[in-house]
Amino acid sequence: MKISCDKNVLLEGINIVQKAVSPKSTMPILEGILLEASDNLKLVGSDLDLGIECYLSAFVEEEGAVVLNARIFGEIVRRLPDDVVYIEVLENYNTNIKCGNTEFNIMGINPIEFPELPKVQKENTIIITQDKLRSMIRQTIFAVGTKESKIILTGSCLELDGNEINMVSVDGYRLALRKEILDSVYEKQSIVIPGKTLNELAKIIKEEEKKISLHISPKHVLFEFDECRIVSRLLEGEFLNYKHIIPKEYQLRVKVKVKPMIEAIERCALIILSDTQKHPIIISIGTDVINISCRTQTGTVYDSLDAETYGSDLQIGFNYKYLLEALKACECEEVYMEFNTSLSPCVIKPIEGDSFTHLILPVRF
Amino acid sequence: MKISCDKNVLLEGINIVQKAVSPKSTMPILEGILLEASDNLKLVGSDLDLGIECYLSAFVEEEGAVVLNARIFGEIVRRLPDDVVYIEVLENYNTNIKCGNTEFNIMGINPIEFPELPKVQKENTIIITQDKLRSMIRQTIFAVGTKESKIILTGSCLELDGNEINMVSVDGYRLALRKEILDSVYEKQSIVIPGKTLNELAKIIKEEEKKISLHISPKHVLFEFDECRIVSRLLEGEFLNYKHIIPKEYQLRVKVKVKPMIEAIERCALIILSDTQKHPIIISIGTDVINISCRTQTGTVYDSLDAETYGSDLQIGFNYKYLLEALKACECEEVYMEFNTSLSPCVIKPIEGDSFTHLILPVRF
Repeated sequence: MKISCDKNVLLEGINIVQKAVSPKSTMPILEGILLEASDNLKLVGSDLDLGIECYLSAFVEEEGAVVLNARIFGEIVRRLPDDVVYIEVLENYNTNIKCGNTEFNIMGINPIEFPELPKVQKENTIIITQDKLRSMIRQTIFAVGTKESKIILTGSCLELDGNEINMVSVDGYRLALRKEILDSVYEKQSIVIPGKTLNELAKIIKEEEKKISLHISPKHVLFEFDECRIVSRLLEGEFLNYKHIIPKEYQLRVKVKVKPMIEAIERCALIILSDTQKHPIIISIGTDVINISCRTQTGTVYDSLDAETYGSDLQIGFNYKYLLEALKACECEEVYMEFNTSLSPCVIKPIEGDSFTHLILPVRF
Repeated sequence: MKISCDKNVLLEGINIVQKAVSPKSTMPILEGILLEASDNLKLVGSDLDLGIECYLSAFVEEEGAVVLNARIFGEIVRRLPDDVVYIEVLENYNTNIKCGNTEFNIMGINPIEFPELPKVQKENTIIITQDKLRSMIRQTIFAVGTKESKIILTGSCLELDGNEINMVSVDGYRLALRKEILDSVYEKQSIVIPGKTLNELAKIIKEEEKKISLHISPKHVLFEFDECRIVSRLLEGEFLNYKHIIPKEYQLRVKVKVKPMIEAIERCALIILSDTQKHPIIISIGTDVINISCRTQTGTVYDSLDAETYGSDLQIGFNYKYLLEALKACECEEVYMEFNTSLSPCVIKPIEGDSFTHLILPVRF
């Protein structure tokens, strides 16, 4: 293999495919990036569950392939001058990297054993814009479960019905639901995509209205956009039937300014974090006021915010972290918080529309 | 004690005195900041070796004092809204902190046992500008020793002679010397200031031409500037007699562009860092060229830079970290590097004048 490629083009490609590479693997080849030169240069990273391919424009003098350690190759290219990078694979996959007056020689690995990305048929395809998908992921990813015992909840459920698309994450204590409208109508179906895939995907796709295609097969989903292809395994099994746990009614509704509420909770967190026990924060809602308070060994904190309240007074406790993450994911200035009793979940909704629903279980205090 | 003070004034004071507070101490009172209200508000932090006092303009309604945990108090004030902060000490040193709609109550400590800062006579006083002192520290601090076995080398030596002031750090493998000219003439003397003191001092003083006074007593030095007083213990003993180890002559002098040289060494570092052994980097100097190379298990790297050379060819090995830190501390575009043999130290000097001298011992390769 003998190619040349602009340093910044190469670096952007490495930064993308590196997201699928595990820094520590039992198979050294999986700590590497596959470089494959034919018409252009293809980079591939994979951890078997998630695979990312990226096509770069490069001048290919001699076709071929090699696997290079992702961390070392990435750091080398990052530090090269902004110039053309020449890569040549010599005997025994020894690889020569030249740029400006700099020259590296590093050991490469025979690419023959690099795992092929699963083939995904392009029969069942959904089209969405990158910014919509990115926003759906960002507003739900924090509620993905982390418990190995409930493996299905370590992913987000993507549901299609007509021109509606939902993304839902549930971890047993909270739920995040995000709705979008698509340009076309699709068959009713649902898949569960691993949280890790969505996390990396949200870092790669951009905040722009360009299209991204999701090709769905029984076991995999393939995301196709720009010069990238991301293939992920799907989680198997039935997702939680979450619809019945979202309360339809409320006894008390509060219109809350998000930023001051976040700041007040973050102040409470100071005395919770400096304590060994996990104390709840107490939200007390009176007429047109929210009081936020907490008491730990470190001390007490008390905050009050103006708010429009509709309904009777209530006092309710929460894990501050869940409340904070849900509010931060709202990405709007004001929201409704809806309550029933101090033992039933709180629902956070937009002032207009129903683009998101965050549900948080309370904590006894 | 009952006071009020602007939040940002208070926060700036906390950020300064906190630099003397150890996050973990066997005496809880030393993890705290002393607040003392009389005419104005005094904040004090101390770890017994280093003490910092800061005077803030505040409205004092009731005189008094309390010690508050530095980390918690600092985090609370940092998170308060930009408004007036009201602090009141209640029964048992319980302390109430109010700002806007927020109110904290945290446990304070009886200030009676807070250590007093050592008194330093103002008989032997040196005046220098803050920017000069800051630059002297920054250009020498990296070469301060870390070995507990040579405690005197864990400080920098400050030497006065007439209107000349030198700061010198030595760690056994390298030396950094920085000279400045003062506005007045002083008696010949030298003291050794702990590296930690200088490190914190460089973070506090600003890049401006305002004066700072150094009051020197046999065991302490007091830095006085703006509204701050910093008292540090001095290190006792004889500093290394370093003057004879700086070569007066050279066989080979190279005029080096600092930035490209740093970048080339950083690229070499990539393959050194990814190896378990500490390999030296090899500098080969030919006619008007410097070649930098290194070989480790990970691979090889080779770089070349144009440079003006005066003298015969040489090949010499270095610990890349020492070379990198010395070059980064130069803070200029070009320097002279002077060599004798591959076993004798390299000296880095400015192109004009003698404001700094960096000396680095070579490594066999």
